[in-house]
Amino acid sequence: MINIPNIVERLREIMDDETLTQLKEELGSYHVADLADIFQELKPDERLKCFKLLDIDEAADLMEYLTPQMQVELLGDIDEEMASKIITKLPHDAAADVLGDMEEDESETYLDKLPQKFSDEVRELLTYNEDTAGGIMNPTVLTVNSEMTVQDVLNHIRIKAEKDNMELYYVYVVDKQNHLLGVVSLRKLLTSPINKTVEEIMISDIVKLHVDDYSDYIIDEFMKYQYSALPVVDLYNRLKGMITWDDVHDLFEEETTEEIYQSSGISTEVVDEDEILSGNILQAIRARTPWLFITLLGEFVAVNVAHHFDHTLNALPIIAIFMPLLAGLGGNIGTQSITLMVRGLSTGQVTLSSAFHHMIREMFIGFAIGSLFGILVTLATWGWQHNIELGIIVGIAMAINMTMATVIGTFTPFALKSLNIDPAVASGPVIATTIDVVGLAVYFTLVSTFLISKVF
Amino acid sequence: MINIPNIVERLREIMDDETLTQLKEELGSYHVADLADIFQELKPDERLKCFKLLDIDEAADLMEYLTPQMQVELLGDIDEEMASKIITKLPHDAAADVLGDMEEDESETYLDKLPQKFSDEVRELLTYNEDTAGGIMNPTVLTVNSEMTVQDVLNHIRIKAEKDNMELYYVYVVDKQNHLLGVVSLRKLLTSPINKTVEEIMISDIVKLHVDDYSDYIIDEFMKYQYSALPVVDLYNRLKGMITWDDVHDLFEEETTEEIYQSSGISTEVVDEDEILSGNILQAIRARTPWLFITLLGEFVAVNVAHHFDHTLNALPIIAIFMPLLAGLGGNIGTQSITLMVRGLSTGQVTLSSAFHHMIREMFIGFAIGSLFGILVTLATWGWQHNIELGIIVGIAMAINMTMATVIGTFTPFALKSLNIDPAVASGPVIATTIDVVGLAVYFTLVSTFLISKVF
Repeated sequence: MINIPNIVERLREIMDDETLTQLKEELGSYHVADLADIFQELKPDERLKCFKLLDIDEAADLMEYLTPQMQVELLGDIDEEMASKIITKLPHDAAADVLGDMEEDESETYLDKLPQKFSDEVRELLTYNEDTAGGIMNPTVLTVNSEMTVQDVLNHIRIKAEKDNMELYYVYVVDKQNHLLGVVSLRKLLTSPINKTVEEIMISDIVKLHVDDYSDYIIDEFMKYQYSALPVVDLYNRLKGMITWDDVHDLFEEETTEEIYQSSGISTEVVDEDEILSGNILQAIRARTPWLFITLLGEFVAVNVAHHFDHTLNALPIIAIFMPLLAGLGGNIGTQSITLMVRGLSTGQVTLSSAFHHMIREMFIGFAIGSLFGILVTLATWGWQHNIELGIIVGIAMAINMTMATVIGTFTPFALKSLNIDPAVASGPVIATTIDVVGLAVYFTLVSTFLISKVF
Repeated sequence: MINIPNIVERLREIMDDETLTQLKEELGSYHVADLADIFQELKPDERLKCFKLLDIDEAADLMEYLTPQMQVELLGDIDEEMASKIITKLPHDAAADVLGDMEEDESETYLDKLPQKFSDEVRELLTYNEDTAGGIMNPTVLTVNSEMTVQDVLNHIRIKAEKDNMELYYVYVVDKQNHLLGVVSLRKLLTSPINKTVEEIMISDIVKLHVDDYSDYIIDEFMKYQYSALPVVDLYNRLKGMITWDDVHDLFEEETTEEIYQSSGISTEVVDEDEILSGNILQAIRARTPWLFITLLGEFVAVNVAHHFDHTLNALPIIAIFMPLLAGLGGNIGTQSITLMVRGLSTGQVTLSSAFHHMIREMFIGFAIGSLFGILVTLATWGWQHNIELGIIVGIAMAINMTMATVIGTFTPFALKSLNIDPAVASGPVIATTIDVVGLAVYFTLVSTFLISKVF
C-alpha cells in the first residue's frame, strides 16, 4: 500500500527546491495508476507542471486512470499539438470517452487534428449511446480468417498487435464482409499444433453482445459467462468491436453506486451520478428532491391518520411519545427486508418464483423479532410508567408493526419487479412512509379500542 | 437472452416422454453457464438425473458456475468414484472451494481418493483463510526462468498449459527457489522477437499480492491497476499462486452485498451472508437483531425526550400528529447524505481531506431543501388547520431538522472513518434514530417556547 499524502509532500518539496529533471525522475518511478491517485491530491497548477514533464506514452497511459474531469482539464491546459498526440496514443474507446466529455466545439477541434482513420473511427464511436455496448466497446479487434493456420495467426499477431496497440484475449474469426464466424482463445492458439487451421480450433457457438445492448445487460453477460472479453456485433452480425473485463469493472462500480443511491431515494435517472456528489449543487438538489417530495406526501397521509384519532390523543396524550419508537423500529426492519429482496433480485439469488417462500420466511422473522421486542417494550413501559395496560398495548402494536413491516418490505419489491419496474427505485423511502401510515393506524386503533374505552 | 422457464419446461417434457439420449443431447446444447441457471430452477431429483448424464469434463465445467450448496448436494448424490474424478478436473482453487464447503469428514474422504500431488496442493489451499489471497488464489501458475528465449517459452506453454489446464494471462519469471523476479504478458510474448530472452522483455516492478491480503485490499488493487491477473507471493517473495479478474468479480459482488446489507443494519460479521437470505432462520434473526436492538435503545431515548415535554403534549396534543412527518423527512434526507458519503469513501471519490467541503455542501443542500419543504408544510398546515402559528413552527422545525439531518449524516461516516471504523456499519439505523432524538427535541422546544406560552 503506498502512502499518497507522503508522496504528495515529497513532490511538493522537489517542485520547490529541485530541478525539473529531478521531478521528472521522481514521477517516472511510480506506476501510472499510483500517479493518478497522486494527481487527485495535487493542486491544479502542480498537476499541470507534473503532467507536462511526462513523455507522450506515459501521459497517454495515465489518461486512462484519471477521472473524466481531470482528463479534460489537463488536455485543455497543454498546447493543442501535444494534446492531439496524446489522444492519438489512446485506445479508441478511451479517446472517444475523453472527447465525449468535452464541449462539442472543443472535441471537434481535436478530431480535425487527429489522423483521418483514427478520427473517423472515434467519430463512429461517438454516435453510440455511451451506456450501450457501442459506446463502451473498443473497435480495434484482432481478426483472422478461417483458412489461416495457427502459425499464420501467430505471425499476424506479431505484426498487427504491436502496431495497433491492441488488447489481446481472443482472436476473432470473420469472413470477407466482417461477419463474425468464430472465436479462438490465445490459450487455444498457443497450445494447438501450428499447422492446424483456424476453422479446426475455433468455437462457433459464440457469446456476443449487440451494439445496442445496455450496460446492465453487459454486466450480466460478463458475470454469467466469465469471459475476459466479448465481441460486439451489429444487426447483421458484423463485428464492430469488443468489450473487455476492465470496462465491465468500471460499469459494475457505476451500476452498484446507482443501486445504492436509488435505495436511499437519490434519483440517478435525471442527474448524472458524478454530479450528485460533487457537481452543481442545483443538480444535486434536483436528484434528491423527488423522492423526498413523495415522502412528504406520504407523511401527510400519516399526519391525517394521526389527526383522525385526535380524540384519542386528547384523551391520552402520553400515547404520542411512543410514536417514534414504533415508526423507527418498523421502518428499520422493513428496510432490512426490502434491502435483502432488492439485492437478491439484482444478483439473481432471489427470483419471482420464490416470492411466496420469501414472504413467509420474512413474516416469520418479523413476527419472531417483533414479539421479542414487544415483550421488551411492555416490560420497559411497565417498569417506567407503572402502567401495564399501556405497556401491553405498545408491545402488541410493536409486534404487529414489525411483522407487517417485513411483509410490506418483502411484497413491494416483488410487486414492482412483476410490473417490470426496477425494484431498486426508491424502495427505501416509500417503505418507511408506508410503515408510518399503517403502523400509526394500528397503534391508534389498539389504543382507542382497548385503552380509551376504559379511561372514559 | 435465453428464456430459462421455457427451457425448464422443455426439459421436463423430455424427461417424461423421451429417452435419456435425447435428454443428454438437449443438455449438451447449452452453455454451462446457462445450464447452471437451469439447474437452479429444477427440482433436486430432476437436477441429479440431468447431472448424471453429463460427461466428466462438462460436469467439472458446470461445477464452477453452481452455488456452493448445489455443488455439495450434487457431488454427495452421485457415487464417490465419479465425484472424485470431477473434483480432479477442477482448477485447484475451485476444488478447494468445493471441499471447503463440505463437512470435514466428507472432504477428507474425497481428499484421500484424489491423486497425491493434487490433494497435497488442495490441502495447502485449505489452510488459508478463505477471505485472503491464499484462500482465493489458484496455485497452478505458468512459470519460466529468465534465461529462456521467447521461443523456449512458447514451446513450454504448448506443453504445460494444455496438460495442467492453466489459465493464461501472464507468464511469471522465477528463480530456482521460486522467488518472483518478473512478469511477461502474453501480448508482449507474442509480439517480441523469438530469440530475445525473458530477462530482456520482462517487467520487474511487479504489482503483487501477499497470501494474507484480505479480499477488500485485493479488490482495490485490481480496480486500481486493472491487470487481468495478479501474482500472489509469501513473506519471502516466493510465488504461491495467482488471482484472476473473474475471482475478483465474485469477490466484488460479495463485498457489494455486504456493504448494502450493512447499510440497513444487517450484520454480516457474525453470520455468513448466504445464510441471511436463505439459510437457517435463527441465523437470519441473529444477523438482524443487533442493530435493531440498538435502534430500540435509541428510540427509548426519543421516547424520553418526548416524555420530558409531556406538559407540552398535554397542553396541545395536536402537535403530536406532526411527529412522523418531521422524523420521516429528517430520516430520509439524512440517509441520503450518509449513503453518498459511505459510498464515496468506499469508491475513493470522497476522502477524509474533503470532509469539511462535503459537510458545508450537504448542509447547504439540507438547508435549501429543508426551507422549501418547511414553506410547503407551513402552507399546508395553515390551509388545513387554519392555524398559521402552528404552521410556522412546524415549518421551521422541518427546515432545522432537515439541515441537521444532512450535517449529522455527513459527519458520522467521516467521524467513524477517522476512528478507523468501517463507516458502512449500520450507519443507516443509527442516523435515523439520532435524527428522531434531536428532531423531537428541537420541535418540542420550539412548540413549548413559542406556542404554549401563548396558549396559557
